[in-house]
Amino acid sequence: MNKYMNKYEANYAALTPVTFLKRAAKFYANRTSIIYGGARFTWRQTYDRCRRLASSLQSLGIAKNDVVSVLAPNIPALYEMHFAVPMAGAVLNSINTRLDANTLKSILDHSEAKILFVDYEYIPLAYEALRLLNNDPKRSTSKPSIVIITEMDSPTNKHGKHESENFETMASVNAHQNKKCDNELEYKDLIAMGNVDFVPIKIDDEWDPIALNYTSGTTSSPKGVVYSYRGAYLSTLSMILGWEMATEPVYLWSLPMFHCNGWTFAWGVAARGGTNVCIRNTTASIIYKSIALHGVTHMCCAPIVLDIIREAKPNELVRLTSQVQVLTGGSPPPPGLLNEMEKLGFHIVHGYGLTESVGPALVCEWQKEWDGLSQEEQAQLKARQGISPLSIADVDVKDTVTMQSVPNDGKTTGEIVIRGSGIMKGYFKNEKATSEAFANGWFHTGDVGVIHPDGYIELKDRLKDVIISGGENINSVHVEGVIYRHQTVSEVAVVAMPHPRWGESPCAFVVRSGKDGSVTEQDMITYCRNNLPHYMVPKKVCFVKELPKTSTGKVQKGILRAMAKKFDVQNDLLLSPNIVASRL
Amino acid sequence: MNKYMNKYEANYAALTPVTFLKRAAKFYANRTSIIYGGARFTWRQTYDRCRRLASSLQSLGIAKNDVVSVLAPNIPALYEMHFAVPMAGAVLNSINTRLDANTLKSILDHSEAKILFVDYEYIPLAYEALRLLNNDPKRSTSKPSIVIITEMDSPTNKHGKHESENFETMASVNAHQNKKCDNELEYKDLIAMGNVDFVPIKIDDEWDPIALNYTSGTTSSPKGVVYSYRGAYLSTLSMILGWEMATEPVYLWSLPMFHCNGWTFAWGVAARGGTNVCIRNTTASIIYKSIALHGVTHMCCAPIVLDIIREAKPNELVRLTSQVQVLTGGSPPPPGLLNEMEKLGFHIVHGYGLTESVGPALVCEWQKEWDGLSQEEQAQLKARQGISPLSIADVDVKDTVTMQSVPNDGKTTGEIVIRGSGIMKGYFKNEKATSEAFANGWFHTGDVGVIHPDGYIELKDRLKDVIISGGENINSVHVEGVIYRHQTVSEVAVVAMPHPRWGESPCAFVVRSGKDGSVTEQDMITYCRNNLPHYMVPKKVCFVKELPKTSTGKVQKGILRAMAKKFDVQNDLLLSPNIVASRL
Repeated sequence: MNKYMNKYEANYAALTPVTFLKRAAKFYANRTSIIYGGARFTWRQTYDRCRRLASSLQSLGIAKNDVVSVLAPNIPALYEMHFAVPMAGAVLNSINTRLDANTLKSILDHSEAKILFVDYEYIPLAYEALRLLNNDPKRSTSKPSIVIITEMDSPTNKHGKHESENFETMASVNAHQNKKCDNELEYKDLIAMGNVDFVPIKIDDEWDPIALNYTSGTTSSPKGVVYSYRGAYLSTLSMILGWEMATEPVYLWSLPMFHCNGWTFAWGVAARGGTNVCIRNTTASIIYKSIALHGVTHMCCAPIVLDIIREAKPNELVRLTSQVQVLTGGSPPPPGLLNEMEKLGFHIVHGYGLTESVGPALVCEWQKEWDGLSQEEQAQLKARQGISPLSIADVDVKDTVTMQSVPNDGKTTGEIVIRGSGIMKGYFKNEKATSEAFANGWFHTGDVGVIHPDGYIELKDRLKDVIISGGENINSVHVEGVIYRHQTVSEVAVVAMPHPRWGESPCAFVVRSGKDGSVTEQDMITYCRNNLPHYMVPKKVCFVKELPKTSTGKVQKGILRAMAKKFDVQNDLLLSPNIVASRL
Repeated sequence: MNKYMNKYEANYAALTPVTFLKRAAKFYANRTSIIYGGARFTWRQTYDRCRRLASSLQSLGIAKNDVVSVLAPNIPALYEMHFAVPMAGAVLNSINTRLDANTLKSILDHSEAKILFVDYEYIPLAYEALRLLNNDPKRSTSKPSIVIITEMDSPTNKHGKHESENFETMASVNAHQNKKCDNELEYKDLIAMGNVDFVPIKIDDEWDPIALNYTSGTTSSPKGVVYSYRGAYLSTLSMILGWEMATEPVYLWSLPMFHCNGWTFAWGVAARGGTNVCIRNTTASIIYKSIALHGVTHMCCAPIVLDIIREAKPNELVRLTSQVQVLTGGSPPPPGLLNEMEKLGFHIVHGYGLTESVGPALVCEWQKEWDGLSQEEQAQLKARQGISPLSIADVDVKDTVTMQSVPNDGKTTGEIVIRGSGIMKGYFKNEKATSEAFANGWFHTGDVGVIHPDGYIELKDRLKDVIISGGENINSVHVEGVIYRHQTVSEVAVVAMPHPRWGESPCAFVVRSGKDGSVTEQDMITYCRNNLPHYMVPKKVCFVKELPKTSTGKVQKGILRAMAKKFDVQNDLLLSPNIVASRL
């Protein structure tokens, strides 16, 4: 049957998200692709700019599979790089802007980035990371070249004052621009000098890498999650379908693009011929103004952003004229929040995912038969993590010992495992972690859940030591490593503690070494702030005599987590201060 | 970068539409998958039935890449075979039920079908084809086994009289069942005796064949168009997106599944967790009753079906409570028809495609900026063939001589060429036709069109000798071959003639050989009815002294087509009978 059935150029094309942009430029040429303050582009212009940038990357010596890193908020440049970098055959490494210089340095070292694009706001951070990299004798790579992204928007734009939100830091841009180093390149120059007729590098194998995203993961060194062209393409279509994003969406960038390439929507908005509303900061005022001005239809965000919206001041709040679709993930939104958001005009869909699953691996897809249920019943159903989209398609919950599927009873817990085309290629330069993650034919999420009789998955606990705070993953082992280096610390364990605003916060249990009994909780927090990205700093440090351990000496984090649940973080007080003393 | 980045079972799955069914059975287990008269199934049941059927096929000796043919209207069995046949590793060959015994015989011979499934209504046709095959000394294959599909619906179903439409031919079922041959298998027995725990054959290579669909094509022998698993999967997602089919559609089967596997929706309804409303006959009464009873949201059909709906008798017509989405293709629907259908509650989207493009290769996607235009302007824009969906993505119009793209001026004509993952694998056992179709990196549609400044394609003419009548392709060369065999015919040319009901009809220009000058138009039509499927029979036969030819002796079909436009077929009269005589 396969005789004479070779692949031809006409019937076989490697799957790549670059197709989405090319098609948008052809069929939606004059539609608005990007709005950013007073700046606007059409899909034709975006395609042209991306081709120019790709040609400039090639001129700078960027070759197939080279890593191009970028440190930027949700600005047009970062969006364009999602297409321009693969067009040059290179791999996009979009870095979390909330990291500290040391972690950034580790990523630049591990990824062997050839170029680092830096938004003007992050220049000091970038230079500190480069200094650390330069001074590290064990570094595996030379310093990347730097390309500075200056502010493209201007406060004197035709839309007037209301769009000036992006200019809070204009002073610092100007300050930088005045003292610009001679050898620094600028993004806008790469666009200007690029060739608009550049022909994108042909992808021979859709299994080739398109993106590299670092996750804090479960071990102390950051892990580089690699996506293939195929995975990115299929995940993108799958997310559009799973979330039911109709054509011509107006998509507000309230989710950082550095999170799994915006849960695939950096590519998906092009596939749908939509409009990207780029914003530098995620405040209630900017969100509401963007919705009112541009008719936002869709947005993704961490639950913390829902809180920000809910807490809008009366003068910031805008009455919505049509419903805004919101996809949120990280932690299940509480029923009260869901109801409040619905009243404000936001329809919330809840998803669950990991960097390794290219964004949402489960989406709590609505079923029409739920329409008739009470609000309470609906909220309960909606709070579940849901079902897998088409690119994952296969999900199961397995007993961690026997690897047998648990019954669909909504009660028996096991590890959530997933598989499909929407799973990462693997961890960059880490064969061991890759093969462990993919053991027994499934990707192991490290999360504990149940399967309900209707096939919907609900998350119950975590096997891995990850704390999710305000949508960011915090690796507790990494935080422990930093605290452990403090001279007064003999033992430390960091666990998640519920937090009313951030969902979870790190809580450290510390055993003093005896050298200095006078070190206080505040001393330790100050020390952490000097040595960790701020979002990773424990909100609570609890000094204990010893840590609870198993007979084989393993710290029983479950007990610590149970204890941390009793802390009232908002008031920074222990509800039952004696519990710690008595139990440990 | 690709180091340690092998494919794992967890992150690489061959793309196959069978995933859609498996996923539907998992997440939409209790939703209605199929409604057929009084019969109803859930997705869990459909999955189980398909596994049973697949296991029975394997028991019958069906192996990887074997062809399984089926001759049936839009009944549940045909739907189930779209999953069960690939689950057994075999290739589904769904045959046009409007063909004559001779063409059917050619297909069975060429496809080397191992089994032929036959709906009870088509038993006489199937047996005649088998007799012809048996008597053909040049046949390349042995006779396929026969599986009879009896009526699964029963007139005594709980929904009463209104669902009895499917039983017009119950008498003939019973008649057949009484004289059933001993060696005949029955569909329902294959389901009953199958193993519900059957594990579908694993697809090693998504480039493997899943379906074989015969097209009348442009040469005299039918061409077998082969789809890959990959092509079927990607085309399915692409069509859902291109037509914006939301989740939980209720899909009415008004388009034969044997047309490009229902323009991919045989698989697509499962991907969307929808409900298939299967119907045996496409009458206005059945369509309206299905919409009213089951809340149909979507349907595809040839323009002829739109006529059938429009011409519904007052007692058949049902006022629609919500809009029905209709995707139509074959010929552009005239503006008047579009407006009338909108008034009746049907929203029409117009597409263009070929068997080789797995259904629609262009869809006239609506652009929001058209909302403000006049009805006339809108109708003009809507009548264009449109833009390519994501699985094709690349379309162009090229000068047939220079192969250069024509300008986007809406005026300059050229051949419409397409490429992408949504194009067939190739023609079965026909290397020459395959490589010709794929020459110069594009699939050549053989259709002439223009590109408008907005990138939308509009069809203008046909390069190939294909007549599209009531949604069926008729190969004029094939009809000419049959007429030429008549002893009184010296020369013949068949072209498309506009027809108010069928869009086009074949019109034959015949030069008598002189042996028998008394043969009439009616004699010739009767002869054709005995030797061709009825829909291929010329509605008009015009005797002429000679055919217009080029200097190299090629018949100038353009001139004949222009002449055929003058015929008033409805009254079977020549508007200007003298034109023919004077010009030829």
